[in-house]
Amino acid sequence: MPPGEQTDAEARLTLSRERWLARYEEVRHESEHLCRPLAIEDYVVQSVPEVSPPKWHLAHTSWFFETLLLEPFLQGYRIFHPQFGDLFNSYYRTLGEPFPRPRRGVLSRPTVAEVYRYRSHVDAAVAELIESVDSGDLAYVAERLELGLHHEQQHQELLLMDVKHNFAINPLRPAYHEAPEPAAPEAAPLAWVDFPGGVVTIGAASEGFAYDNERPRHEVALAPYRLASRLVTNDEFAAFVEDGGYRRPELWLADGWTTVTENAWQAPLYWERRDGTWWHMTLGGMRAMDPHEPVCHVSYYEADAFATWSGKRLPGEAEWEQAAAGLRVAGNLYDTGWLHPRPAKGEGLAQMFGDVWEWTANSYEPYPGYRRAAGPLGEYNGKFMSNQRVLRGGACVTPASHLRATYRNFFYPHDRWQFAGLRLADGP
Amino acid sequence: MPPGEQTDAEARLTLSRERWLARYEEVRHESEHLCRPLAIEDYVVQSVPEVSPPKWHLAHTSWFFETLLLEPFLQGYRIFHPQFGDLFNSYYRTLGEPFPRPRRGVLSRPTVAEVYRYRSHVDAAVAELIESVDSGDLAYVAERLELGLHHEQQHQELLLMDVKHNFAINPLRPAYHEAPEPAAPEAAPLAWVDFPGGVVTIGAASEGFAYDNERPRHEVALAPYRLASRLVTNDEFAAFVEDGGYRRPELWLADGWTTVTENAWQAPLYWERRDGTWWHMTLGGMRAMDPHEPVCHVSYYEADAFATWSGKRLPGEAEWEQAAAGLRVAGNLYDTGWLHPRPAKGEGLAQMFGDVWEWTANSYEPYPGYRRAAGPLGEYNGKFMSNQRVLRGGACVTPASHLRATYRNFFYPHDRWQFAGLRLADGP
Amino acid sequence: MPPGEQTDAEARLTLSRERWLARYEEVRHESEHLCRPLAIEDYVVQSVPEVSPPKWHLAHTSWFFETLLLEPFLQGYRIFHPQFGDLFNSYYRTLGEPFPRPRRGVLSRPTVAEVYRYRSHVDAAVAELIESVDSGDLAYVAERLELGLHHEQQHQELLLMDVKHNFAINPLRPAYHEAPEPAAPEAAPLAWVDFPGGVVTIGAASEGFAYDNERPRHEVALAPYRLASRLVTNDEFAAFVEDGGYRRPELWLADGWTTVTENAWQAPLYWERRDGTWWHMTLGGMRAMDPHEPVCHVSYYEADAFATWSGKRLPGEAEWEQAAAGLRVAGNLYDTGWLHPRPAKGEGLAQMFGDVWEWTANSYEPYPGYRRAAGPLGEYNGKFMSNQRVLRGGACVTPASHLRATYRNFFYPHDRWQFAGLRLADGP
Amino acid sequence: MPPGEQTDAEARLTLSRERWLARYEEVRHESEHLCRPLAIEDYVVQSVPEVSPPKWHLAHTSWFFETLLLEPFLQGYRIFHPQFGDLFNSYYRTLGEPFPRPRRGVLSRPTVAEVYRYRSHVDAAVAELIESVDSGDLAYVAERLELGLHHEQQHQELLLMDVKHNFAINPLRPAYHEAPEPAAPEAAPLAWVDFPGGVVTIGAASEGFAYDNERPRHEVALAPYRLASRLVTNDEFAAFVEDGGYRRPELWLADGWTTVTENAWQAPLYWERRDGTWWHMTLGGMRAMDPHEPVCHVSYYEADAFATWSGKRLPGEAEWEQAAAGLRVAGNLYDTGWLHPRPAKGEGLAQMFGDVWEWTANSYEPYPGYRRAAGPLGEYNGKFMSNQRVLRGGACVTPASHLRATYRNFFYPHDRWQFAGLRLADGP
Repeated sequence: MPPGEQTDAEARLTLSRERWLARYEEVRHESEHLCRPLAIEDYVVQSVPEVSPPKWHLAHTSWFFETLLLEPFLQGYRIFHPQFGDLFNSYYRTLGEPFPRPRRGVLSRPTVAEVYRYRSHVDAAVAELIESVDSGDLAYVAERLELGLHHEQQHQELLLMDVKHNFAINPLRPAYHEAPEPAAPEAAPLAWVDFPGGVVTIGAASEGFAYDNERPRHEVALAPYRLASRLVTNDEFAAFVEDGGYRRPELWLADGWTTVTENAWQAPLYWERRDGTWWHMTLGGMRAMDPHEPVCHVSYYEADAFATWSGKRLPGEAEWEQAAAGLRVAGNLYDTGWLHPRPAKGEGLAQMFGDVWEWTANSYEPYPGYRRAAGPLGEYNGKFMSNQRVLRGGACVTPASHLRATYRNFFYPHDRWQFAGLRLADGP
Repeated sequence: MPPGEQTDAEARLTLSRERWLARYEEVRHESEHLCRPLAIEDYVVQSVPEVSPPKWHLAHTSWFFETLLLEPFLQGYRIFHPQFGDLFNSYYRTLGEPFPRPRRGVLSRPTVAEVYRYRSHVDAAVAELIESVDSGDLAYVAERLELGLHHEQQHQELLLMDVKHNFAINPLRPAYHEAPEPAAPEAAPLAWVDFPGGVVTIGAASEGFAYDNERPRHEVALAPYRLASRLVTNDEFAAFVEDGGYRRPELWLADGWTTVTENAWQAPLYWERRDGTWWHMTLGGMRAMDPHEPVCHVSYYEADAFATWSGKRLPGEAEWEQAAAGLRVAGNLYDTGWLHPRPAKGEGLAQMFGDVWEWTANSYEPYPGYRRAAGPLGEYNGKFMSNQRVLRGGACVTPASHLRATYRNFFYPHDRWQFAGLRLADGP
Repeated sequence: MPPGEQTDAEARLTLSRERWLARYEEVRHESEHLCRPLAIEDYVVQSVPEVSPPKWHLAHTSWFFETLLLEPFLQGYRIFHPQFGDLFNSYYRTLGEPFPRPRRGVLSRPTVAEVYRYRSHVDAAVAELIESVDSGDLAYVAERLELGLHHEQQHQELLLMDVKHNFAINPLRPAYHEAPEPAAPEAAPLAWVDFPGGVVTIGAASEGFAYDNERPRHEVALAPYRLASRLVTNDEFAAFVEDGGYRRPELWLADGWTTVTENAWQAPLYWERRDGTWWHMTLGGMRAMDPHEPVCHVSYYEADAFATWSGKRLPGEAEWEQAAAGLRVAGNLYDTGWLHPRPAKGEGLAQMFGDVWEWTANSYEPYPGYRRAAGPLGEYNGKFMSNQRVLRGGACVTPASHLRATYRNFFYPHDRWQFAGLRLADGP
Repeated sequence: MPPGEQTDAEARLTLSRERWLARYEEVRHESEHLCRPLAIEDYVVQSVPEVSPPKWHLAHTSWFFETLLLEPFLQGYRIFHPQFGDLFNSYYRTLGEPFPRPRRGVLSRPTVAEVYRYRSHVDAAVAELIESVDSGDLAYVAERLELGLHHEQQHQELLLMDVKHNFAINPLRPAYHEAPEPAAPEAAPLAWVDFPGGVVTIGAASEGFAYDNERPRHEVALAPYRLASRLVTNDEFAAFVEDGGYRRPELWLADGWTTVTENAWQAPLYWERRDGTWWHMTLGGMRAMDPHEPVCHVSYYEADAFATWSGKRLPGEAEWEQAAAGLRVAGNLYDTGWLHPRPAKGEGLAQMFGDVWEWTANSYEPYPGYRRAAGPLGEYNGKFMSNQRVLRGGACVTPASHLRATYRNFFYPHDRWQFAGLRLADGP
């Protein structure tokens, strides 16, 4: 993601160096805090190619600061290790030849202790940079710093997703943390909320932090539409399963049906039937499924098939954003500590932020007028704009300070290890 | 594709039974005419899974009439062979278990002669149906008949694409027909044509034949934009190749770069360098490449990378349709007999129809308010609305009577055996 | 296979040119005779990579004579087509880059008619060579000629195996010929025939035609052993199937069990259960299985698992050869026209030649003192001496004049499209 | 491997319980001693499917004692963990469904500490069993114990092979231990040692410990032959590489050539060319290659191609055993601590034991009269008797007390991560 526009540079200058340092330390500390429950062995493994070992996340986020901030801006900076450049580059081909992603879990070295030393080395240097950078350069440095911190927050969420997957495929089914017993309230009843449509404006305004894929702000023509007042629940999704949902090709997109049959999918990821009832893996270990919680860990294909079976459809991303535009970014996000979706409460449009990411009907494409930045930051978002789908709203593992109504997350339609569910839409 | 709306049933009734029969015979005859240059052996082979043997196309189009028209509407109809239902079903899962697509080329039986007998059997029955159907049912039968004829025309184009591929992978490089020597005029110089944008209406009106994916007609908000006056030429694309286009990851979408490296692509499909100059396979055999012809047989990834390298972009499908809205459907289409793209002539917006299909920037998605029909016709288009991209405008192998300005063709972004090229766009 | 030893050159000279020509014409004619029942389409297809299209066999055997006999020995010989050298080279890497074997079925050209013209061209040239070669060279030419004819006979058997496979995977299950109804006699009861073992001599003597892999003749130490008097029958093998043979890993070699599970094998190739009884595909089409016929189309893994289940073992190849040493080469071979195994008749050691190839317990390895010939003929047999198993005795599709007691056939342990069955052994 | 014959039970009884316990503790301790240089992370990873994580080896060898000794013989034995039965079963299908081998490296749990607790638990129980078992049962228990200890020694060698591979694929190329600098003596010059052949007896006698695949002892007829006095050196193998050995198909077995081309092999495993000289990975890290050391980490295909290129051949396993029959089991084995092959010294037949395993020309097949034991021990060796090749003589990572002249090691012909090299043979 390229830096924000020049125009708000001055506003940022008013944030003192102290506040930047505090923000940096807070986010960096959170990544390490997240790892406290892990054994050394847990830092190393990679259950499937799309998952990365926790120690890789810790190192890669440091590499990001080292490569994009310290090397260009901190004079005399000494890189920590000459081979970490390739080892911890994720996919920036303008910066070298990344170590192959599916092989991240076969590297026992560097050890976890070395990775923490790498973090300390980078942290000290970033602190030095914040203190020593010329006032004239501070705005530019702050932009990259802010990007690096948002990047690190994305990897905090990825780390939790990945630990969950690594633990779920282990026959011992270890727990990441001791989760509080759910209070098991009923989900609020489903209602429909109407929106008038029309020519609306979506996307991030030019001020304030946002990723480049949220810009430019632009007009979209919408017909009138309705959104469900809450997310689809486990109970509702189980009805689809019982009704033969995974055995009826007419409900599925063609590529979805191929995916279902090739992978022998019979239910959402992590669902297991034991003695006639559904259980599922959570970050707190195996638990009997709460019927009122939002369904989680479904792919786009499953979300779409469920909507077809329901006689409804998925929301468009502009529809979703228009509905969310006035809402406060609050809900069951990472900050609550639950790390698991919870039943909807209250009336009106609920669960727009948090619990689970919501699949939208749209492919992940550039907004009109979008241009990729030059250099490595142009690889941050733009090059993924094919074959993926947009998700909105954040999940119970997304830090609140990382989210916005205009935020566009994206995954392949077959991906389901992220905390993803769905909300139904209807009309026009 | 579901039948058109009830409202234009009466208009269709005015077409006499004779005119329907004549139209039927004309299209069906064209499929057989197309196959005249083939040896028996050419009807059988399948070079790659996405290609089908010519005899399969001839049988499948007959199966379509048999299954969707004769079985439900012609009383006493006797199906030709009990196993053809599965053998020649392409992908209609509501109609049985189709024979696996990648294995179509391992079937020596039924023989070509048997397939032609199958066609005759179906043709006689359709003629009988047209003659004998109640006036009250004629409108409905005519809708399915019209759909079947458009379906057959799609397969005429596919058959030519497939024969070209089957011949191109053969080291003997046989020619399908004796193509006239190109006159080799220069391509018209590139100019830019401006469009004002605004809230425009796209999609097929409710009257007249169109596929369901072209409906409903709806509003779209467009910023001002410009389109290139003609298609990108071989010469222009060769400059991209010479400039290292296929070796520079920064120009490519991430999935595109994976495709390039995994398949070792170095140029468009069918290009071969011989003694320092480019040759390519055509339906007339191997020919030295004409630099002024539109580039053909490029994937979406290549089209997008070329546009990035050019500092431009691909047109959106709404932009393309808006520009094409007032134009006559005319150009270097199948009916010219060239079966190969030709250099642009004249001034103004050229080559909008014919020569090569134009990749647009858009994923193939339902228009707002689109609903899949129930039953097998719901599988015609709707279930393919994931992971594919829209192409517009038709090619030199597309029958003119098959095309419209609202026509949406679609292929996977890695596909390139269809006659596909690109036109550049710019703005907003 | 390298030419025989110099020592018998004189013996061969006594065969007149006329007799060589007659022998050549007889074998070559038989290949074409075999193809009479085929439609043009049947010549083209390749159901799996190890099967070749019939037209490929017809062309490859001609290529063998052209490349190894005509090019080096017939002055002024004009090759038929410059690209046939690579197209019809099977695996002789010293002679160029063979066209990829799994892709032989995607070539519609050359047509079948062109392949027959190729054969005529080669036949005329070979006739000319036989007539015109110097007496001094005749011995050497005759050696290659004899090798080429045995090579062609191998391909006659392969052609029948391949046609059977091509027809068997076709849902229409076409028949190759009209097979006479089986007389359905009972199989002779199983008896055991004892052999004393000791230090015996096996392998082909230095005189007369034999492949290089049958030489040199050498000593082997054998313990006393017994052989079953006849082949294992369908009935006996069905008992293994009913007893859960394909679901019990303890009966299988480790690689065999992997093969069974990965391919979901549940019975021999071509077996199909219909309404509770076994049917199988034959060259005469689908037929109810005769329980008394020898089991056919089993892999080495299945043969070995059956033997383990029976508490017996497979014969060693030296054991088999010692037992066959004094027998006449006669039985249900190609020459009977049955093209299908038949129940054992009579007393004593039966079915040693014909019906089905018998898997032996031995890997295909060089005899002590074996040396590969230099040049392309060194690639005929020697380079396949890894990972394959020896079969002995010939099958109902093997020409009688092609077989010997010392003949070593070989296939991979998972192969089962050849006509292969087994005979049990016991002791020491 | 099944227990030895009843006949030597009495001899074993003379070994006191104390001596069995001491032997058990010595071998078990060695496995843990071997792991001292490892970081926790090194215990977890699996670079390729055929390699296992060190913690898996430590657990699996304990599982072997638990399952085959403690469960059946120690009354009241409480298994350590109910799921370890499947997790640490390697391939004994009669004992349950083993966890998939290629996925051993994705399990972070049990932790290394838990695995060591598992070992202690088992060790205490085995000690208790040795102390408490009835005298009448001691012989039988001792047989299984002895098998378990040989099994553990096999895994000690595997563990070193696997750590080497895990470290070699890591771009940081960590060292397992600090190896002493090689003294770099020249290899002894190559001489040929003659053997008369004849009918010889090979295989293990019925007394004393041996694996079942070494029995029964039996006669083999051998022609006269010669063996090279020492192993092939790096220098000699490098000459093959320089001579285009990896680019000349005529030198290779057909399956070998496929392996070479599919894997782009250009030299033995672990060889790397840096600035024009060869380096290779060792357990002491990357080192410049010593030209006089035996070549190591070659597959059967490479060994065979080298022999062909040399105009020689590989020894038969009977030839090798006959030559080794009178020799003392001594050489550069694990006990020297070198863990790397060293140049040959002295005159006469050298390096028969130790340095590298020697590929023989023979497939791994049962000796005449071999019968698999019933139950899980029947799976130890017998089921692998297809598609593998025999190696003889042990390597620098093989414990001396584990080896015998009759010992038959076996690997697939493409395997090369074991310490394998070759000795040339000649004649008859």
